[in-house]
Amino acid sequence: MTQYKYDVTMSCGGCSGAVTKALAKLEGIEKFDVSLETQKVTVESATLSEAEILAAIQQTGKTAKVSEQ
Amino acid sequence: MTQYKYDVTMSCGGCSGAVTKALAKLEGIEKFDVSLETQKVTVESATLSEAEILAAIQQTGKTAKVSEQ
Repeated sequence: MTQYKYDVTMSCGGCSGAVTKALAKLEGIEKFDVSLETQKVTVESATLSEAEILAAIQQTGKTAKVSEQ
Repeated sequence: MTQYKYDVTMSCGGCSGAVTKALAKLEGIEKFDVSLETQKVTVESATLSEAEILAAIQQTGKTAKVSEQ
């Protein structure tokens, strides 16, 4: 299991809800957390790569990058 | 050229911006308008079907349906 962290620009509950919905339907994710407050998305997966998850988040149209923290 | 209309739930500029970004990178769209105020998305395309465009909008994680108006 690997944990990945992303910085995602989300301005309201509709934004974070959209990211939540996109991750919820992605196969291969064990656990995830979307925080509107910290603008961070944390994902745990055993099968998906960092880049694959980033691509799924970016498909929501949000600005997202791998978090350096 | 066919014009399609969709009702899309968008609560802030980040939401409508995400839908705009998703449509902007979709091939086969001639013209589109995303209105946060009216919660409507209007798309003109000669090659894409109503369902294909709806699927692209829904990939943003937003609640969307074909508009009946």
